Amino acid sequence: MTINFQSLHAPRGANGHFALGLFSGGGFAHEADRAASSDVFIGWKRGNQIACLPFFRSAQSAELAGFVGEQVKPSQLTISAFNESQIERNFHWATDTWRAPRISFSLATPVSGINVPPPEGSFQEFKDSILPAIPARLTLDNRDSSNPLQGFFAVNGLRGLQLLEGELTGWQTIQGYGFACRPSPNVRAVSHWDLPSLFTPPHPMPFPLTGMGVLLVKVPAGEIVTLDFVLGWYRSGIVTAGEQKLSYAYTNHYSSLPDVLSRALDLSPQLWNDAESFDRQLLDSRLSPDRQFILAQANRSYWASTMLFDAPPPSSGHAEDLRYVVNEGSFLMLNTLDLAVDHLFYELDFQPWVVRNLLDHFADEYSYTDQCGVSFTHDQGAYNTFSPRGFSSYEVSEQEGCYTYMTHEELLNWILGAALYIHKTGDRSWADSRRGLIALCYESLLNRDHIDPGQRDGLSDNDSSRAGGAGEITSYDSLDPSLGQTRRNLYIAVKCRGAYLALAWLFDYLGDEAQGREAKQSAELCKTSILAAFDPRIGYIPALMDGQDRSPIIPALEGLIYPHQMGIPPDAELTRCLRTHLETILRPGMCLFEDDGWKLSAHSNNSWMSKIFLAQHVAEKILGIPADSRADKAHADWWQIGCPSNPGIDQVFSGTTPEKNFFYPRAITSYLWLLNS
Amino acid sequence: MTINFQSLHAPRGANGHFALGLFSGGGFAHEADRAASSDVFIGWKRGNQIACLPFFRSAQSAELAGFVGEQVKPSQLTISAFNESQIERNFHWATDTWRAPRISFSLATPVSGINVPPPEGSFQEFKDSILPAIPARLTLDNRDSSNPLQGFFAVNGLRGLQLLEGELTGWQTIQGYGFACRPSPNVRAVSHWDLPSLFTPPHPMPFPLTGMGVLLVKVPAGEIVTLDFVLGWYRSGIVTAGEQKLSYAYTNHYSSLPDVLSRALDLSPQLWNDAESFDRQLLDSRLSPDRQFILAQANRSYWASTMLFDAPPPSSGHAEDLRYVVNEGSFLMLNTLDLAVDHLFYELDFQPWVVRNLLDHFADEYSYTDQCGVSFTHDQGAYNTFSPRGFSSYEVSEQEGCYTYMTHEELLNWILGAALYIHKTGDRSWADSRRGLIALCYESLLNRDHIDPGQRDGLSDNDSSRAGGAGEITSYDSLDPSLGQTRRNLYIAVKCRGAYLALAWLFDYLGDEAQGREAKQSAELCKTSILAAFDPRIGYIPALMDGQDRSPIIPALEGLIYPHQMGIPPDAELTRCLRTHLETILRPGMCLFEDDGWKLSAHSNNSWMSKIFLAQHVAEKILGIPADSRADKAHADWWQIGCPSNPGIDQVFSGTTPEKNFFYPRAITSYLWLLNS
Repeated sequence: MTINFQSLHAPRGANGHFALGLFSGGGFAHEADRAASSDVFIGWKRGNQIACLPFFRSAQSAELAGFVGEQVKPSQLTISAFNESQIERNFHWATDTWRAPRISFSLATPVSGINVPPPEGSFQEFKDSILPAIPARLTLDNRDSSNPLQGFFAVNGLRGLQLLEGELTGWQTIQGYGFACRPSPNVRAVSHWDLPSLFTPPHPMPFPLTGMGVLLVKVPAGEIVTLDFVLGWYRSGIVTAGEQKLSYAYTNHYSSLPDVLSRALDLSPQLWNDAESFDRQLLDSRLSPDRQFILAQANRSYWASTMLFDAPPPSSGHAEDLRYVVNEGSFLMLNTLDLAVDHLFYELDFQPWVVRNLLDHFADEYSYTDQCGVSFTHDQGAYNTFSPRGFSSYEVSEQEGCYTYMTHEELLNWILGAALYIHKTGDRSWADSRRGLIALCYESLLNRDHIDPGQRDGLSDNDSSRAGGAGEITSYDSLDPSLGQTRRNLYIAVKCRGAYLALAWLFDYLGDEAQGREAKQSAELCKTSILAAFDPRIGYIPALMDGQDRSPIIPALEGLIYPHQMGIPPDAELTRCLRTHLETILRPGMCLFEDDGWKLSAHSNNSWMSKIFLAQHVAEKILGIPADSRADKAHADWWQIGCPSNPGIDQVFSGTTPEKNFFYPRAITSYLWLLNS
Repeated sequence: MTINFQSLHAPRGANGHFALGLFSGGGFAHEADRAASSDVFIGWKRGNQIACLPFFRSAQSAELAGFVGEQVKPSQLTISAFNESQIERNFHWATDTWRAPRISFSLATPVSGINVPPPEGSFQEFKDSILPAIPARLTLDNRDSSNPLQGFFAVNGLRGLQLLEGELTGWQTIQGYGFACRPSPNVRAVSHWDLPSLFTPPHPMPFPLTGMGVLLVKVPAGEIVTLDFVLGWYRSGIVTAGEQKLSYAYTNHYSSLPDVLSRALDLSPQLWNDAESFDRQLLDSRLSPDRQFILAQANRSYWASTMLFDAPPPSSGHAEDLRYVVNEGSFLMLNTLDLAVDHLFYELDFQPWVVRNLLDHFADEYSYTDQCGVSFTHDQGAYNTFSPRGFSSYEVSEQEGCYTYMTHEELLNWILGAALYIHKTGDRSWADSRRGLIALCYESLLNRDHIDPGQRDGLSDNDSSRAGGAGEITSYDSLDPSLGQTRRNLYIAVKCRGAYLALAWLFDYLGDEAQGREAKQSAELCKTSILAAFDPRIGYIPALMDGQDRSPIIPALEGLIYPHQMGIPPDAELTRCLRTHLETILRPGMCLFEDDGWKLSAHSNNSWMSKIFLAQHVAEKILGIPADSRADKAHADWWQIGCPSNPGIDQVFSGTTPEKNFFYPRAITSYLWLLNS
């Protein structure tokens, strides 16, 4: 394992992160479409020697040259980065720690969810859980020395520096982020363009024009000093456009970045305690180190993509004004519904109220009706811009391929989300309030098979009229047609069966046993068609059940997860069939890469991490296929070695990616490993 | 002359621009530290042929690949850019026009200033003059053809697209800019990732997830069509931090970007008329084409750097709440005072009220007192972040070289600004209100020579105590010490003499004839020392009048401009001496580059355009040295050929720069050529 990979250390709901881990840069970002890649200097200076953790590209500022022209000052300093062999990184569920000679540095990030908002939940617990800040800890060990040492945490790429003094020592910026500790005689906030300039005699000082903010700690000879500080984010005012003009929810609870930093410093001991307890929970789990790494990385990228909005003042601050959004990572689409259905396993365990929040906004604002009935949009907008009601930012008519409508799949996703939410929470009043919509969903789903009940076979056959003649696509939009095409797709069929079973459970729950029975029959029809499509000559079910295609796909399994999570007993026949399917295709040349990593479609090198983790879980927990540690090793390597600058990236092409600093939230599906372990 | 250079087409006071002219990209920017460099496609499509003006780097979107993975659609289109020989560019004072086969495109930008705000000025005229929008005109000529043609204006790099419909046809973005025309049957607003995708069958449509917004015009066979549209900028809410929390003034007069675009469309005929009238004025002037180019380029970069702030609502909307700021170009420092003194020749002609506004804020908020008396800070902050009262973002204590205090020079700048403002406007009530400060300035200036009146020689000798032991610097901070050091500096001395004469004029104006006489004597003392420093062996005055230095510098002349602008007759002896000085040093190996461009200091390759233009003007108008067209050619070439991506850049190193997309406002000193022609 390498330790040279980027991670996003992020609070909840602030769409901000502090990137750290990649040996070329990181730092603060706010509403960014890529992981930050500024120079970060964490290290110490003794005499003319400076040693840093390797989170920077250049020790000298390029901007400085723009100001001083040919006036370059010579520096007596030597600046070196620790090499990988000198550094120990402990990357846990909640904490991430680097240890190198004389220094250690840690960040702690949230694992659990946003607490239930008032009036149902506690005001203070809610407020604390949306605090847009994370704690950091820098320790400098000068015990073996007879000379003093200066330790520093320095971040470049800052703009509009304002010195924080009084109750805080640190920096805030016009970019809306900053960092601070409590005042102490051995700590100063200083700044400059780069380390050589900062340490040019006579001595470091605050210089607000520059871009590198620094906390500087004096460590006397023979001593060890630990500096606790916090990183925070704050953006005030209305930050969205289009259909909704909203503010970050934290702005209704904290007045400013200094207010946030101050509260975070007060909470810091508790935040570290919580973090260490989550670390311990994962370390004590039965997950392998590769899987622990994957979940810890995925969890961070999930939170980095989250936003909790509120109506601007005077907002009630209560649940009804809140709007939870998961950005689609670097793509920045708001609440992509075919991601939401993957996030909800994690969300239902930690913050089920956000699932309801999202389902409500889709139901009330982002649903529409086509020739078959109701469905839901792919997303609610992009780039903080809410799209017009009933329309996504992504779907366009009359265009084949990527960007076509996902009508059938998004209908499944809303049904499954609603069913899993109600099953998990027992929120009967919400179920009652959505009774009518649930019935419409069932009707719409049936019609997508065939308008004539007599001609239904459980498979998707009707492309939405919204698509304007183009063929509907699935969530797997950038893969080959074996996964990308909705019509008669095996992945959709198994998921559709899951949705019928979910509907049956919902109808039973709502006391409508007749509809429940009917929905079970719909599920049976699905199953029958799926089983009938199994081709014994090839040993698996072709991806497109059109009598011609022979593509092998792993996500055939995916739809089994929903009834499983709802406690609906598996169907032995279907389970057996899909086990055979997977056993047949899970081999090199078909759905395994050479390194034993999983290849979702035999006909595409584009394999999505979130969906692999989900499929692995179904294979192991439902189909009874043993876990393959070589596959886990391959997947961990794809992220760590193949895509090190792209925390949580989903689309991996034969173990690598052309993207740089790309991040994505969806791999939080890996939480299923822990949830059901 | 080449036509391949970037220009910033900008409204007044909005800190926004539309970059166009460089053959690799341009587009919208808002509060940016560099000229925009997105792909801009302005062209036409006939059949499968697309031809564009060359304002793009790549015709295919890199972002698209991130979405579609390996699913690349083949395109039948051929996309070509016109080459330079096919394009005629007419770059005038206010309009910029490109003509190529079948197409012409023009932008018009303001030349004159922001009108006097209410209550003194007209509400409507003020409001119109801060409209954050500029008009654009696209003409497609399909008269020679029997096939229809589609013309387009397309800008990439947009985020959060919202379609404008109803009264407008166009796009707005969450970035706060956009463009629109009035609805017409032959025009549509569409969008996509790139042109090949846009024109992939069946037909172009709005697709808000993407980043390329387009206005698409149908042109029937045999017709010529002109599309008038507008580009606009809008950022609401509080946009500054630190000592002042302010909004853009236009937000108190326009409710939204669509409101801005709509008003701009109404005003469009008048804006074009005004622009053409300014074009004509410059074309009819006696300025050479090189100088016309320089002024037209400088004027645009000046406006691109301006911001007019207002208190957030409920603001009075009146002058007392307004705050005019010129950003220091790509450096983004707010109201750098040693730039302000260069901008004011232009500002006093077009918008003298902004000079008073700036002088007031320096007097009331950004002045301080050191061991010699009062002075003013270098700037008022940076990156929209106002620094604490009495401190700039730039100046730091105890540090030699760039970033040291400019106390002496900034004192001169405030005095000269105040004097030129009062001289130009006859604003007696303001002069009266600043009477006390003017007297303090005089006292402070004297003390910087020597605290003991008996030991004064008119030259700067006392470094400010604020500098904490370091040597004060001049505005020429990144040049060698011959221009950078304040103590006994010739440039400072001549400017100091100008300030004493300006003070004498002010005291006379204020009726204090005794102080007026005294200030004249101070000016005489300066003059005597300057003349005494002339070294007949070398034929010029050394830059540092310390008896050792022998550096030749051109800005020795600079200080002559202030008494000249105030109508104070030149001193024959000093004029003669400085003429000899300039004649001696203005030669290759000293203060001329090999191409006959001016080299401000013989010992630095870093020569500043704004200061060259000012010095040229002094040489011609005051010293009577004939203009040298070879020098003008060299300077125009530096901008066009040496620094084509850097509109208005000041710091040019031997005709070129390592910077990319850097812009700067100060070269508006070139307006002196026209003002006094």
